[in-house]
Amino acid sequence: MKDLTPTVTTGPLPASRRVWHAGTRHPDIRVPMREIDLHPTAGEPPVTVYDSSGPYTDPDAQIAIDRGLPRLREDWIAARGDTETYHGRHVQAADNGFAEGARLTPEFPVRNAPRRATQGRAVTQMAYARAGIVTPEMEFVAIRENLGRKAQAEAHAQTLPRDGEGFGAEIPDFVTPEFVRDEIAKGRAIIPANINHPEAEPMAIGRNFLVKINANIGNSAVTSSMAEEVEKMVWATRWGADTVMDLSTGRNIHNIRDWILRNSPVPIGTVPLYQALEKVGGVAEDLSWEVFRDTLIEQAEQGVDYFTIHAGVRLHMIPMTVNRVTGIVSRGGSIMAKWCLHHHRESFLYEHFDEICEIARAYDVSFSLGDGLRPGSIADANDEAQFAELETLGELTQIAWARDCQVMIEGPGHVPMHKIKANMDKQLQVCGEAPFYTLGPLTTDIAPGYDHITSGIGAAMIGWFGTAMLCYVTPKEHLGLPDRDDVKVGVITYKIAAHAADLAKGHPAAQIRDDALSRARFEFRWEDQFNLSLDPETARSMHDETLPKEAHKVAHFCSMCGPKFCSMRISHDIRAEAQKDGMARMAEKFREGGDLYIPLEDKA
Amino acid sequence: MKDLTPTVTTGPLPASRRVWHAGTRHPDIRVPMREIDLHPTAGEPPVTVYDSSGPYTDPDAQIAIDRGLPRLREDWIAARGDTETYHGRHVQAADNGFAEGARLTPEFPVRNAPRRATQGRAVTQMAYARAGIVTPEMEFVAIRENLGRKAQAEAHAQTLPRDGEGFGAEIPDFVTPEFVRDEIAKGRAIIPANINHPEAEPMAIGRNFLVKINANIGNSAVTSSMAEEVEKMVWATRWGADTVMDLSTGRNIHNIRDWILRNSPVPIGTVPLYQALEKVGGVAEDLSWEVFRDTLIEQAEQGVDYFTIHAGVRLHMIPMTVNRVTGIVSRGGSIMAKWCLHHHRESFLYEHFDEICEIARAYDVSFSLGDGLRPGSIADANDEAQFAELETLGELTQIAWARDCQVMIEGPGHVPMHKIKANMDKQLQVCGEAPFYTLGPLTTDIAPGYDHITSGIGAAMIGWFGTAMLCYVTPKEHLGLPDRDDVKVGVITYKIAAHAADLAKGHPAAQIRDDALSRARFEFRWEDQFNLSLDPETARSMHDETLPKEAHKVAHFCSMCGPKFCSMRISHDIRAEAQKDGMARMAEKFREGGDLYIPLEDKA
Repeated sequence: MKDLTPTVTTGPLPASRRVWHAGTRHPDIRVPMREIDLHPTAGEPPVTVYDSSGPYTDPDAQIAIDRGLPRLREDWIAARGDTETYHGRHVQAADNGFAEGARLTPEFPVRNAPRRATQGRAVTQMAYARAGIVTPEMEFVAIRENLGRKAQAEAHAQTLPRDGEGFGAEIPDFVTPEFVRDEIAKGRAIIPANINHPEAEPMAIGRNFLVKINANIGNSAVTSSMAEEVEKMVWATRWGADTVMDLSTGRNIHNIRDWILRNSPVPIGTVPLYQALEKVGGVAEDLSWEVFRDTLIEQAEQGVDYFTIHAGVRLHMIPMTVNRVTGIVSRGGSIMAKWCLHHHRESFLYEHFDEICEIARAYDVSFSLGDGLRPGSIADANDEAQFAELETLGELTQIAWARDCQVMIEGPGHVPMHKIKANMDKQLQVCGEAPFYTLGPLTTDIAPGYDHITSGIGAAMIGWFGTAMLCYVTPKEHLGLPDRDDVKVGVITYKIAAHAADLAKGHPAAQIRDDALSRARFEFRWEDQFNLSLDPETARSMHDETLPKEAHKVAHFCSMCGPKFCSMRISHDIRAEAQKDGMARMAEKFREGGDLYIPLEDKA
Repeated sequence: MKDLTPTVTTGPLPASRRVWHAGTRHPDIRVPMREIDLHPTAGEPPVTVYDSSGPYTDPDAQIAIDRGLPRLREDWIAARGDTETYHGRHVQAADNGFAEGARLTPEFPVRNAPRRATQGRAVTQMAYARAGIVTPEMEFVAIRENLGRKAQAEAHAQTLPRDGEGFGAEIPDFVTPEFVRDEIAKGRAIIPANINHPEAEPMAIGRNFLVKINANIGNSAVTSSMAEEVEKMVWATRWGADTVMDLSTGRNIHNIRDWILRNSPVPIGTVPLYQALEKVGGVAEDLSWEVFRDTLIEQAEQGVDYFTIHAGVRLHMIPMTVNRVTGIVSRGGSIMAKWCLHHHRESFLYEHFDEICEIARAYDVSFSLGDGLRPGSIADANDEAQFAELETLGELTQIAWARDCQVMIEGPGHVPMHKIKANMDKQLQVCGEAPFYTLGPLTTDIAPGYDHITSGIGAAMIGWFGTAMLCYVTPKEHLGLPDRDDVKVGVITYKIAAHAADLAKGHPAAQIRDDALSRARFEFRWEDQFNLSLDPETARSMHDETLPKEAHKVAHFCSMCGPKFCSMRISHDIRAEAQKDGMARMAEKFREGGDLYIPLEDKA
């Protein structure tokens, strides 16, 4: 029974404290951030960074995986008075792939009655936003995105540098709750927040917010267990995953998902089709609307925050994929294509999309409209099938929006650099500025084992162009299931891509951490360099491989150049000499064209 | 004495053979390439890839590190009749930092008399190109860049797909020796090929050729040895480094460099200033033109193929760096800045640049004009100091070209994505299209330990925009000296960036390997996927972690999705079904708007 209470990674990151900022409109909300303390010699305030890790990094939090996280949104949801609790659907043996006895993952020990909208109401953040209501979730997001920089800027009378190329993004200096409401109302951002997942800390996905990243986890028919998956979720959020998709297949899908949801501080996404396929024994043709609908309700009651729905795969598009080098590479896409072809009709996802919206609005499940026909190779990028589906996703977006459902759009995949921007441009054009959520894209196919890098390049670029969330790719992509180390490398790589995108878009706060780290580097504050980095453990251990002694943590050089060749040490000498000489005056003189500046032509 | 004959990594990569293509104009030249054999079920010819690894991957080659590689260019050079052998400079104790006894790295056992131009002649590839001479080096490069695709294209009557955005690059369908000559004559490409390094296989660096990568090695005052450095050179070229820079500091610089040069199949670059500084005891102010000149001759006689010369750091620019967040981060740049400031005059590099050119043209040492004032942080990117120096590098380029010297220009460094293209545009504009050679650039500073990735993003982009060679960054950047594993990760990451750039530029042959690997993936030829990848060992071992059995190498699924969820397997079913149904006819019907295609608006 050791699986019942798996252990997960807890404790703060080095020199870091979890801090909270209270709301103004909603004084009871407490928005978490991470403050990284710097060495006293820096004379600088702590650096505040976005924190997706939940209570696990709070040393004062009582973590008990078999009880789950505190249900922080429960009162907010109840207070709206538009939902009811009800008995909910009975768990069936098929939900767990008929696993029995020792092979059955135990149920999560606590059961909360599910909640749903009353009288066909829409209880989505979009519905509230359109009604002019600023929800606690919206204020939470506004505070979270600002990272306390308004107070800091006012205290120091700083003007925020605005530098960058946003390609039409409209990122404000400071995010207000009203701005969040407006973006949600327009469909340009979503807050994935199922009313049955009150444990999650609200976050926004949209082009005018910080670029987010998703990490995929999930057991498969071949390997892994519940305990591993819960730890992978905690581990992924520790390093910065903003949402987690549970892509489990095989047995025990229902019960594993419950453990994940009850312990997840971030929104959880799924592809309900995977579980539906398991329920019909893996035979795509045997899928039906009834099985799928039942699965949606099962997962909505559990609290899944967003569903990938491959409703854009239409019958007439399938022939467009036949001459591709790699056919259909989306699992959901291929399953639906097979179903369509077998039954020779449009998919039940497409035909019943209205009813899918009815379910989604009753629980506030956001849509991630799946790109079932995304390219699976450089050769297939930006082809007819891909763009035909994208246009259909645009039509479906309008249908969902008409029902107040929150929508984001999935994108590729495998795209060479010169074809990336066309993806973003077309998505903005045909999907009404609904947030784009891309997988990479990989910019070449020749490096299996390094596809976090081939795709990190594409992810940074498409994030710059406007993609709101980047789905990570781990080194194991195309080769095997990622383990814990792979998850971390994938997350860090995508944090790099997202942050590089924020910098290039001109996000007003993006450069604060870069500059703090650069100053630490220039001033030989090694500990600060480690602590400010995305992965302090790796930075420190790499440094210590060649200069392990504690004394070297204050050394004014490193093993790369050694003391004599240290450019930064020499730069300090130059500054000192410059001050002695009155460098400022000297600079003036040179700019005026003093004697010492002899143009090369004259000299030659 | 075990250091005398260090062992290096030898043997072919999996399923790979080293093959040779003969010249036409010069029938004695043998241009190496690597052919990767595919599984017989593929029904495809071997895939030919560029091979920088030298004889080390040839099982028939006799490798003896203490004898060095065959001197393949010796006869070509002698046949030109414009050089003479001479006794050369005596090795001095200072050349090896006064290392003695057991601390002295042994001299390389074979001494060849150095060669230099007679009567002030220029013996550079540029001089020959301008004289209308197609050298064996030029034909070698032309054959090498084509990778046998002309013969293949003719055999299969294929038209080459030309897709991409080259931003003004003029990449031909097939590279001819005349094209190479023309590019060299214009200064748009270089062939770094010191007449005293006849062991190296000629290669070209230029915007209209394949994007190249450089790997840095070198011992430091703190760590490493000759045996390690020779192995790092062999190891780096095994994975794809096109040139190697020996950035050694500390003792034994001269002797270690000799071992590296005599065994290197790729051009070797250095920063002569480093050795000059060692000769004056590490005191920048004590550097002089005499010491530097002596070092240039020492290294030119040994066979160094390109020199980084920081002649662009001028006195009036130094004040521009004083308010930077990270000052001057180039080692050479900071040393020269300190010298200039101390002596209050222009540097001896700038003042004696003419004489430096005289030395370079006598041995055909190419210049890599160093960016001593490159930014060391996101905050300092594209600033006044950086661009002022770049303009001076443009002036120096003209001086070098006037003396028939080959030139490339070094570039940054640390640059956020939205400021990368401006670097390329300005370099093209002010440096007359001399090849650009950039370090990264890093697109964010918050990820020490992952700077191969932060910089791989920038490298891919600037490669796309037109950079001819990308200097790798390893995971240890900013933290310590790279070991063997770091070198490999750095090289593979930069091969990815260079190849992604070739694809996006629309290089006519770039996609061949991607497509072959994609087909292998779609057809479940696992062995071919591994063998076609940049790092077959890693791809295979990652696959085997979850599905180790030999039987799984032919499995029509992998551990990521398992058999039921394998989109590729399902895609094959779809193809089979499509053939049964006459998919082509079906496609026609759908495109005409058959019954099954009901637009969403009508349905709703």
